[in-house]
Amino acid sequence: MKKIAIAGAGAMGGRIGSQIKQAGYDVTLIDTWEAHVNAINEKGLEIQTEDETYTLDIPAFLPDQVNDVFDLVIILTKSMHSEAMLRILNDNGTINKDTALLSMMNGLGHDERLSKIVPKSQIFLAVTMWTAGLRGPGQLLLEGQGSIDFQRSDGHADERTQRIEQILNDAKLNATISDNVFKSIWAKATVNSVMNPLCTILDKTIYEFGTYEHSREMIHPIVEEIVAVADSRGVSLDTDQLIKKIESSYPKEAQGLHYPSMHQDLYKGRYTEVDYLNGQITKYGREAGIATPNNEMLTHLIHQLEMKHIKS
Amino acid sequence: MKKIAIAGAGAMGGRIGSQIKQAGYDVTLIDTWEAHVNAINEKGLEIQTEDETYTLDIPAFLPDQVNDVFDLVIILTKSMHSEAMLRILNDNGTINKDTALLSMMNGLGHDERLSKIVPKSQIFLAVTMWTAGLRGPGQLLLEGQGSIDFQRSDGHADERTQRIEQILNDAKLNATISDNVFKSIWAKATVNSVMNPLCTILDKTIYEFGTYEHSREMIHPIVEEIVAVADSRGVSLDTDQLIKKIESSYPKEAQGLHYPSMHQDLYKGRYTEVDYLNGQITKYGREAGIATPNNEMLTHLIHQLEMKHIKS
Repeated sequence: MKKIAIAGAGAMGGRIGSQIKQAGYDVTLIDTWEAHVNAINEKGLEIQTEDETYTLDIPAFLPDQVNDVFDLVIILTKSMHSEAMLRILNDNGTINKDTALLSMMNGLGHDERLSKIVPKSQIFLAVTMWTAGLRGPGQLLLEGQGSIDFQRSDGHADERTQRIEQILNDAKLNATISDNVFKSIWAKATVNSVMNPLCTILDKTIYEFGTYEHSREMIHPIVEEIVAVADSRGVSLDTDQLIKKIESSYPKEAQGLHYPSMHQDLYKGRYTEVDYLNGQITKYGREAGIATPNNEMLTHLIHQLEMKHIKS
Repeated sequence: MKKIAIAGAGAMGGRIGSQIKQAGYDVTLIDTWEAHVNAINEKGLEIQTEDETYTLDIPAFLPDQVNDVFDLVIILTKSMHSEAMLRILNDNGTINKDTALLSMMNGLGHDERLSKIVPKSQIFLAVTMWTAGLRGPGQLLLEGQGSIDFQRSDGHADERTQRIEQILNDAKLNATISDNVFKSIWAKATVNSVMNPLCTILDKTIYEFGTYEHSREMIHPIVEEIVAVADSRGVSLDTDQLIKKIESSYPKEAQGLHYPSMHQDLYKGRYTEVDYLNGQITKYGREAGIATPNNEMLTHLIHQLEMKHIKS
């Protein structure tokens, strides 16, 4: 695995790509945002951390301008853009039958969508607890610490699994090979499916949401629906543990003063990832004959708000 | 029935009271808004219609300053204020065992709440399709036409039923004695329980709400829950008919350009009537063992927004 590409090099893609690059690997950034790609090529990627600001030279391309083959492609587009991105990369030979695809995207169902393009044995799924910000084209803000859990999407291990772990850990990304990555994916998706739409619909910070005396009664039925749907797909989650995890984010000292990412997307006029969270849960629920009225209502409310806030 | 009082003489109470007064009856307005009461007593009630603006002399009192006994008290406070109002009127002898109480309030459960203060045989329930506005203290805006359906709350008729019909029709209020007022109450409450919270949460006009391509999928499960709960209480509603009724309000030529009253309450910093709509449906549902996840979620979302918009 010599040649590594980051497909979707926004904030998170920029973090992962720049850390791997700084570990000495051959890394290429691929993104559809032209001003961002141009800024990186002209001035380098400007990286601001808690301690310093510096510039990293790293090549960046628009998807249809890549003319290279990669051994590992890490996917960090927004959920709704991954298929289009991969079709372009597949069509122009940037990925082939030897390329490992590592999805670090939030949300559910990425393995199924990606497996329309490449076999499941080529697909690796990751859950990351890292965060990152973008201050403008070519300007990355990297604060805090995180970790990555990942696994081959068909559950099998191979030599590439070890190799990916090596690369991520050389890049100080705290990676662990999981023996049940779906559980981590669903757990993270549960937290996101609760706090993202609720704080977005209410235009409230996580802390403000939590101050409502019946907030647990609000989140409990949403979580219960997700746990039931996950169970129908062989993923065993614990409702009380998830509720605890969600509530641990309420204090101001935790994530309380933040708005979830969906809030930022919507109010900046971008489409949200609700279809890959609550919407996907509703779809899976329908397939399994499990009613998900709460997740369905939240999905509709967010789509209604997208109509209002996104000027096309 | 000589002496008539309007308990809660805001926009709607002002309409009903002024029309009965103009039909030659002895009408007294009772309201807790001091500036409004003072304006009416000092300058008369200023009434603006489609055609003219004129002033009507009509006595107005704060609840604890009324010193009279009434034969008919028409209740048009906000739902959450009716019990406090009636307790005061009951304590100071304004209502007694011969007083007929006619509730014209929106929402569900008023018969039960009022029957804590007077027997059901004294309580009459009405559904009104009239509207009205208040431009300021003592300033009424009366446009459009409407009608009133009413019935004694225990289902029996008596001589007073006829008398009330006479009074309301003398006042050109298009009143009809109903043989199933609960059906009308629930039908109106269904429409209100759907459009009020949704347009309030989304900050959308009725028309804007209706332009979402999945709006029917959004409203259908809410209506279904209400129909099931109504059925458990012996009230038979028709889901399709209610959906049709709701959707008929979407066009701009219908009510489409308006925000529902709950929207106006919330964004003017007042508590909403959600506990008498979706909240009451949830309570009844719980009593009957019927799940009402949609109505419960809407209730919570509105209470969360009340915390945000109402400065106490």
